[in-house]
Amino acid sequence: MKVITLLLAALLFATRGLAAESLPSWNDTAARQSIIAFVDRVTMPDSPDFVAPPERIAVFDNDGCLWAEQPMYFQAIFIFDRIRQLAPQHPEWKDQEPFASVLKGDIKAALAGGEHALLEMAMATHAGMTTEEFEKTVTDWLATARHPTTGRPYTEMVYQPMLELLAYLRANGFKTFIVSGGGIEFMRPWTERVYGVPPEQVVGSSIKTRYEVRGGKAVLLRLPELNFIDDKAGKPVGIQQHIGRRPIMAFGNSDGDFQMLEWTTSGSGPRFGLLVHHTDSVREWAYDRESHVGRLEQGLDEAETRGWVIVSMKDDWKRVFAFE
Amino acid sequence: MKVITLLLAALLFATRGLAAESLPSWNDTAARQSIIAFVDRVTMPDSPDFVAPPERIAVFDNDGCLWAEQPMYFQAIFIFDRIRQLAPQHPEWKDQEPFASVLKGDIKAALAGGEHALLEMAMATHAGMTTEEFEKTVTDWLATARHPTTGRPYTEMVYQPMLELLAYLRANGFKTFIVSGGGIEFMRPWTERVYGVPPEQVVGSSIKTRYEVRGGKAVLLRLPELNFIDDKAGKPVGIQQHIGRRPIMAFGNSDGDFQMLEWTTSGSGPRFGLLVHHTDSVREWAYDRESHVGRLEQGLDEAETRGWVIVSMKDDWKRVFAFE
Repeated sequence: MKVITLLLAALLFATRGLAAESLPSWNDTAARQSIIAFVDRVTMPDSPDFVAPPERIAVFDNDGCLWAEQPMYFQAIFIFDRIRQLAPQHPEWKDQEPFASVLKGDIKAALAGGEHALLEMAMATHAGMTTEEFEKTVTDWLATARHPTTGRPYTEMVYQPMLELLAYLRANGFKTFIVSGGGIEFMRPWTERVYGVPPEQVVGSSIKTRYEVRGGKAVLLRLPELNFIDDKAGKPVGIQQHIGRRPIMAFGNSDGDFQMLEWTTSGSGPRFGLLVHHTDSVREWAYDRESHVGRLEQGLDEAETRGWVIVSMKDDWKRVFAFE
Repeated sequence: MKVITLLLAALLFATRGLAAESLPSWNDTAARQSIIAFVDRVTMPDSPDFVAPPERIAVFDNDGCLWAEQPMYFQAIFIFDRIRQLAPQHPEWKDQEPFASVLKGDIKAALAGGEHALLEMAMATHAGMTTEEFEKTVTDWLATARHPTTGRPYTEMVYQPMLELLAYLRANGFKTFIVSGGGIEFMRPWTERVYGVPPEQVVGSSIKTRYEVRGGKAVLLRLPELNFIDDKAGKPVGIQQHIGRRPIMAFGNSDGDFQMLEWTTSGSGPRFGLLVHHTDSVREWAYDRESHVGRLEQGLDEAETRGWVIVSMKDDWKRVFAFE
């Protein structure tokens, strides 16, 4: 056992040596410094605020926090692409809203029906197949779909500074989770490869499934019925359901993340909350209080009082995307 | 990076050396051999059936598989103890079934109302408090409650061979999960300490919660409303919801685990299913087809056809409990 202890100690030392060079895509502003100071505070063995590794839980929103969300949520684009793809099997969609508008290319009209219309389209494209079949549609879509303005695969529309942050936290003994309003099974097929976050550390919105045995093979059939909405006050609920302990760090970008940051930072002991503010109209997009996606208002108003860090993408990040 | 790779390789080698001495509380029968053969088959780098570490997911039932479940589920005993404890605040229970029978010490009469009565008692004792308050009631109860026949704390009523199996699998790169019909928040306060399974790797039955801010502090209030029953066909659903990939090993002991084993072993590639059969009336209890808890019938009938391993506690285990 002594050999193992020595090896582990050496490994730990080697890892800690990397910390000085971490977060290279962050400017050395107050935001970067506050992250490093917090991580030092909870990981240095002699710190009065030392937190044991199992309690080092960090949660990240996905849309607008780890990857982009403009000109609209990427999952919405997936839904519209799937409707076009499935249209030959649904001749009735030609005369049926909101599908008819999608097929005519009029997304604005398709979304005129609000949440109800979006939900109807989500169910038509996300249910009625097994979990394994759905995973394949996501993987196939990502392999060929391209972002409308950058022409890049969606999995390249991820923020380089946030990838570095995920890796930096893991190197410091944190377990990193995604807690997103997006569909849990829409994210799982690629989060391990892109973010280093395995499927079992992804929390998201979901529909119900039913267990069935088909020709000797067990499957889970996806049903057109909502199971859970992982947004706003649903995020702390989803965190408790999946993780079972209160995180000590939370990262978001919109008012949909407000309660997740509130839940995280109102626990006892050292806590850290951070909101990514989309301020860079050149390298990314600039939006906040009036945006149709990722609306950020309450968070901006209350961050200072609550001690949350606001990251300005324009000022705090050297680079936004890896492909720049 | 080269140094880290070398250290990791050395660590891996040191760990593998421990495998020969693992599972010391198992007799060297076919059951033990089948476990070791399977683990070698999926972990040896030159094996044609090698499984990458992230896919090495093993799921374990709790009641009757990791700890005992006689004379009744320990969570039921917790419920009855809580009813006695809360009775002063509920004078109406004196005349109200099933509570009145519990207070008179007549558990059989209390359970006469079947599932409905049990659910009513569960809600009365598990809801109406925050998640943190509930965690404290579980921790406090475990600190003083003693098993009616052995006089041991419930957390000592765990099977030594299964503790060794959990550790052996983790030493071989497996991630171990509990997937139990029991309450998820009833297990989480102690599974890390007792089994080495952290809260985020526990799947179980649950009630709904509501997010609230009380005097500046965010809490989750437990509601008297079922959220999910993690039993039978619910187990594969719970596994997909929490883990998001099909396990390659599953361990159970009752027909409540049948679908979990079926889901696990009907996937492609190497798969392993095992049922603990309670055959030891001296060191533990002997029961199967006719039992009121942990009924095992379909599993016994179909194990051979399905290639599942049956462990006889009497014949395959040198020791059942650590305190023997």
